[in-house]
Amino acid sequence: MADEVILLDFWPSPFGMRARIALREKGVDFDPRVEDPRNKSPLLLETNPVHKKIPVLVHNGKPVCESLIIVQYIDETWGPESPLLPSDPHERACARFWADYVDKKIPVIGAVWASTGEAQEAAKKEYIEGLKVLEGELGDKAYFGGDRFGYVDVSLIPFYSWFYALETFSDFSHEEECPKLVGWAKRCMQRESVAKSLPDSHKVYDFMLELRKKIQAQ
Amino acid sequence: MADEVILLDFWPSPFGMRARIALREKGVDFDPRVEDPRNKSPLLLETNPVHKKIPVLVHNGKPVCESLIIVQYIDETWGPESPLLPSDPHERACARFWADYVDKKIPVIGAVWASTGEAQEAAKKEYIEGLKVLEGELGDKAYFGGDRFGYVDVSLIPFYSWFYALETFSDFSHEEECPKLVGWAKRCMQRESVAKSLPDSHKVYDFMLELRKKIQAQ
Repeated sequence: MADEVILLDFWPSPFGMRARIALREKGVDFDPRVEDPRNKSPLLLETNPVHKKIPVLVHNGKPVCESLIIVQYIDETWGPESPLLPSDPHERACARFWADYVDKKIPVIGAVWASTGEAQEAAKKEYIEGLKVLEGELGDKAYFGGDRFGYVDVSLIPFYSWFYALETFSDFSHEEECPKLVGWAKRCMQRESVAKSLPDSHKVYDFMLELRKKIQAQ
Repeated sequence: MADEVILLDFWPSPFGMRARIALREKGVDFDPRVEDPRNKSPLLLETNPVHKKIPVLVHNGKPVCESLIIVQYIDETWGPESPLLPSDPHERACARFWADYVDKKIPVIGAVWASTGEAQEAAKKEYIEGLKVLEGELGDKAYFGGDRFGYVDVSLIPFYSWFYALETFSDFSHEEECPKLVGWAKRCMQRESVAKSLPDSHKVYDFMLELRKKIQAQ
């Protein structure tokens, strides 16, 4: 019997994009179910009762939650011939460290696009500092792990679809601040798994503009 | 040549304790180096330049940072006959989920012991709610993974050494709120790896009392 793979997802979510990219890297057919954050489905509440958040991967009825854990699960379950994590334990620990770094630096993005004035400037500074650390780690490599697209790339590339919105709301250029990182992002976008999984930047901007209006009206 | 294993550590740190427990579970001899948080060693700054935090495991000169990543590295490097993570990918994802849950709920502990009044009450409420979710997940099992001490146990048990201090500062009883969790903690403490790695609760209390005075004086 074929695997039943359902992905509970929401299109502008970078965390959902991670799961989409990993599944496509492994060539896994999946049934994407778009969730409404204001009206969560019974399946979402049942499969992620603790956090009640997308993404959730439901594989033959068994749920896996939290995007980086989902990506590791996908890597361990399908396509051992095209691993996302390196086989060497120390290299694997380094990959986990940088994906974790991305997750630790992400919360500040909210303040870059949703806040204004001094709070926005402080958030922008922190965000760019975080990106520069990642740019330093990338260096002159093609991908974070070297020549192969892998786990750290999957964890970070979804945010590329937010770059245009962040630049427009907060008046700076990723290209000027982190040229190597933008080069890396363009390289990643040449992969079908990434190109098919990231939404159009202008659509993300329109979505965030609407959300920003709602937040600021509150 | 024998492995050189150095652990940069600080005795009251639950994150450091995780690494100590995992190394002892695997029977790995290690050289514990106690760091002074106010005067970090050149080795710490060199091996963890991004976060500049303990614990850092330095294995034959190669550093691994972030406690849960260290525990996974230890599990993948030594003693495959006594694994901390389950071999089944879905069970492994579940173990990672609960260890991640512990890490997401931990920050509130700071406010339980360091704050006062309403802020402390709110933090205590959030902390106990988090523990009750963990108690629900534990249920009637001996350990989080079933009959075997494993990854989730390693991630959570260090905080048992803080229970006495938290109760004294914030006036509640873990035993009353979460009796099964306290039973589990006592069971874990019967393991040599845990008993040798957790400091005395009263020593932790004295340390936190001093630190609390300094914070409140600022």
